[in-house]
Amino acid sequence: MPPLSGSEPLWFYEDLHPGRVFDLGVVEVTETDMLAFAERFDPQWYHLDPELSAKGPFGAVTASGWFTASVFMRAYVDNVLVHAAADASPGVEELRWPAPVYAGDHLAGQVEILDRRPSEARPGLGTLTLAGTLTNTATGRQVLRTRFRGWFAMREETPE
Amino acid sequence: MPPLSGSEPLWFYEDLHPGRVFDLGVVEVTETDMLAFAERFDPQWYHLDPELSAKGPFGAVTASGWFTASVFMRAYVDNVLVHAAADASPGVEELRWPAPVYAGDHLAGQVEILDRRPSEARPGLGTLTLAGTLTNTATGRQVLRTRFRGWFAMREETPE
Repeated sequence: MPPLSGSEPLWFYEDLHPGRVFDLGVVEVTETDMLAFAERFDPQWYHLDPELSAKGPFGAVTASGWFTASVFMRAYVDNVLVHAAADASPGVEELRWPAPVYAGDHLAGQVEILDRRPSEARPGLGTLTLAGTLTNTATGRQVLRTRFRGWFAMREETPE
Repeated sequence: MPPLSGSEPLWFYEDLHPGRVFDLGVVEVTETDMLAFAERFDPQWYHLDPELSAKGPFGAVTASGWFTASVFMRAYVDNVLVHAAADASPGVEELRWPAPVYAGDHLAGQVEILDRRPSEARPGLGTLTLAGTLTNTATGRQVLRTRFRGWFAMREETPE
């Protein structure tokens, strides 16, 4: 099944070798986006209230970790999944937010394939284990680190 | 530091005992919400395209797993964190999406405290390990399962 672009998938399970690294580019975190997400999904004072946050441990409003994870996902879709015969994901094995994210931050993303094997649950698919990071380009600090799995179609299972 | 409501926190680290269970109520997944999230953060065909999804493995458009996680977070904020002296979270140890989520689904949430200990990284805070679930009320199937950590202020560290 093709991605939304309608183009043929370029990368099947067989093309996705452990050790392969994908650059996800750099994403700017805008205040509007960050606050809209927090209002809808994570309305806590340290994600929304500038006055309280100024006196808090991080000195300013910080992004919801789920916003940061979603920003990572979008960069992963735009730079990897649109080029791949990607299916859904069974889950995430680790997700860490080692440093806070602030409005205006520029985050550079990377994904590396750690491991792969045929899926037991879904024949015709392979399961990849991947490591992802987002790094603040100004400070060099990682702000997101994750290890997750994803299903990808095998080439031989896909009709011409 | 108080939650946004301005009310005093009711639950400190000392009140949050392992074994305690919180009911997060039931949330309805609306199509508008689900698609808006996917367009912004996870624009893959199986989260957006009804025609392709009808022929796909899940039979209809399914929610992004990050949307489901964000819906869980909102229910956790509304039912637990607004009543607690909650700080940020260092991360998530497990996040699984064992069954798909569709528009119109009603999801019942629950959180249980698994473990707690004083934080080494942030003195004055305690780290809780919690287990969270979302369950489809019509089918009884779990659609999200997670094990995560959260920081909570200790009562004795908070000035009167």
